[in-house]
Amino acid sequence: MTGPETAPRAAPDFPTVLVVGDDPPRQLARLNRRARVLRAGSADHRALCARLPLADALLVWDFASDAVRDAWPAAGARVPAWVHTASAGVDRLVFPELVAAPTVLTNARGIFEQPVAEYVAGLVVAMAKDFRGTWELQRQRRWRHRETMRVAGTRAVVVGAGPIGRAIARTLAALGVRIELVGRTRRDADPEFGTVHQAGALARLLPAADWVVCAAPLTPASRGMFDAAAFARMRPSARFVNVGRGPLVVADDLAEALLTGRIAGAALDVFEDEPLDQDHQLWDIPGLFVSPHMSADTFGWQDELAEQFLANYTRWTTGAPLFNIVDKRLGYVPVDPRPAP
Amino acid sequence: MTGPETAPRAAPDFPTVLVVGDDPPRQLARLNRRARVLRAGSADHRALCARLPLADALLVWDFASDAVRDAWPAAGARVPAWVHTASAGVDRLVFPELVAAPTVLTNARGIFEQPVAEYVAGLVVAMAKDFRGTWELQRQRRWRHRETMRVAGTRAVVVGAGPIGRAIARTLAALGVRIELVGRTRRDADPEFGTVHQAGALARLLPAADWVVCAAPLTPASRGMFDAAAFARMRPSARFVNVGRGPLVVADDLAEALLTGRIAGAALDVFEDEPLDQDHQLWDIPGLFVSPHMSADTFGWQDELAEQFLANYTRWTTGAPLFNIVDKRLGYVPVDPRPAP
Repeated sequence: MTGPETAPRAAPDFPTVLVVGDDPPRQLARLNRRARVLRAGSADHRALCARLPLADALLVWDFASDAVRDAWPAAGARVPAWVHTASAGVDRLVFPELVAAPTVLTNARGIFEQPVAEYVAGLVVAMAKDFRGTWELQRQRRWRHRETMRVAGTRAVVVGAGPIGRAIARTLAALGVRIELVGRTRRDADPEFGTVHQAGALARLLPAADWVVCAAPLTPASRGMFDAAAFARMRPSARFVNVGRGPLVVADDLAEALLTGRIAGAALDVFEDEPLDQDHQLWDIPGLFVSPHMSADTFGWQDELAEQFLANYTRWTTGAPLFNIVDKRLGYVPVDPRPAP
Repeated sequence: MTGPETAPRAAPDFPTVLVVGDDPPRQLARLNRRARVLRAGSADHRALCARLPLADALLVWDFASDAVRDAWPAAGARVPAWVHTASAGVDRLVFPELVAAPTVLTNARGIFEQPVAEYVAGLVVAMAKDFRGTWELQRQRRWRHRETMRVAGTRAVVVGAGPIGRAIARTLAALGVRIELVGRTRRDADPEFGTVHQAGALARLLPAADWVVCAAPLTPASRGMFDAAAFARMRPSARFVNVGRGPLVVADDLAEALLTGRIAGAALDVFEDEPLDQDHQLWDIPGLFVSPHMSADTFGWQDELAEQFLANYTRWTTGAPLFNIVDKRLGYVPVDPRPAP
């Protein structure tokens, strides 16, 4: 079976659930009478290989590792019916063997939208108002009044028309920012944003943007999309924000664009290799804010992720349709353009 | 005449306009064929005293000084018909002699609302997400993931139901913050906020607030309203923001509340004495953001202020009603609760 899966094979009476990750949530104790729960740390390749063939379902708690991809061959023909990842991005899981397998993949859509949107809106205002400069002056006990930028009336290009990109766009619009939303395919008559532009329109949209926000899924088509050519099309006053995945951006090109004044500022919450190495040049590029992949993680996020998995687990074992089924070929959950309730 | 003025006496054919301030706007050149324009630096008491009796209208460009109050007796019975201040707050101008005089006072309502609202919204998100902590860690090249606060669903008390307070409340509400708006008098059925609470309700509202934002006018009744007793009613997790006027807050009490963990954080954009003295303790109270009275001042603000004065000047000289007439006894422009167009 190679088409997109819309339902996993039915759960057996007492499924085996393999939890991949080093610090799985305490809520999983509620599975104990309903499943055999196995665990494997994401660094423990041997344990993962030994247990993967036993698993009916996989909960990928540590989404930032390639452990599942590396262990997948050990499953042989006995692949899990269902893999759930406690993340929005599924880039670590849509490797060819899982895409080809009769395994349904679900993600954590619905948890991260609002936190990421707030975070990006805060970054936009912080950059517009130069909070960082003010706090640096405060450290020096220097009173230096400056004029700053009005956010209302500025223009943002938000790349990523999934639920996170849409939440960002909605929140910026609430601050009076004019939005151009960019997705994989063009869509007219979007109920919130009118036209959703296709990725090919980006080059045309970038020169008008005060803010360029990347919240796209990482796919072969989107990898490296923010490179020297993209930064060259932005205004010298533009600021760039990446809350998607590190490899969407060619980090050296961004560093160069900042160092040469090609753009005015940037904020990165995600990086090609995380954690960012202590010697990495990105830590002190002027005008660059570095944060440790935390934009989505508000108090209680792990509880929400655990509850979401358990709710989907109940659906699986009762034969109800799963939510958040990823289109493995696209690399994300195809989204209804209406905001989630 | 001691009642509230609603119109200044008619402009003479070729009025004398006295501009008080050290760096008046170039746009005033457009008055040259329509008025005799005099100037006085706000530190030049003698010049101000000499020219004040000649003035039909006064433009107070340097709103942060007491120069006008100090010079006012020099006008004798020949007070200006109209005083316009290029500021939202009129606390430096509602001294008893001007309140009692047949002088109409107007202010800069309409210029500062959106910038201040954005600034406050940015501060709220920055505090919720601990941007400052992240930037400090970046300086140290340290990757330290933390969980942060979700802004949507938190509660703010916004004190000041004038146009700036309302804009702040509207902008925070757009981020999903639940708002309690506090004004001088209680108003039910407010078209945007339902109930506007009277100041007396503040003690009851403070214990539920995650954010307490002060955007009140400085009047005898509001001076020192945020004191030890007010901070004692707030949550240990609460953050306080003042964008009104410095003396609304008892700074020593705020410092004590922060130093003892009575509240979690604060941001002050205004101070009793500005600029803040380099030795002042407020510069390095943990959890306190100090900014140099700049929340309202976006690029072009001085142009907007100049244009606003000129527009009102044209109204005066053509006999049209002035806008932004201050109720000198209240100390602010009584506001229509609907948002400005």
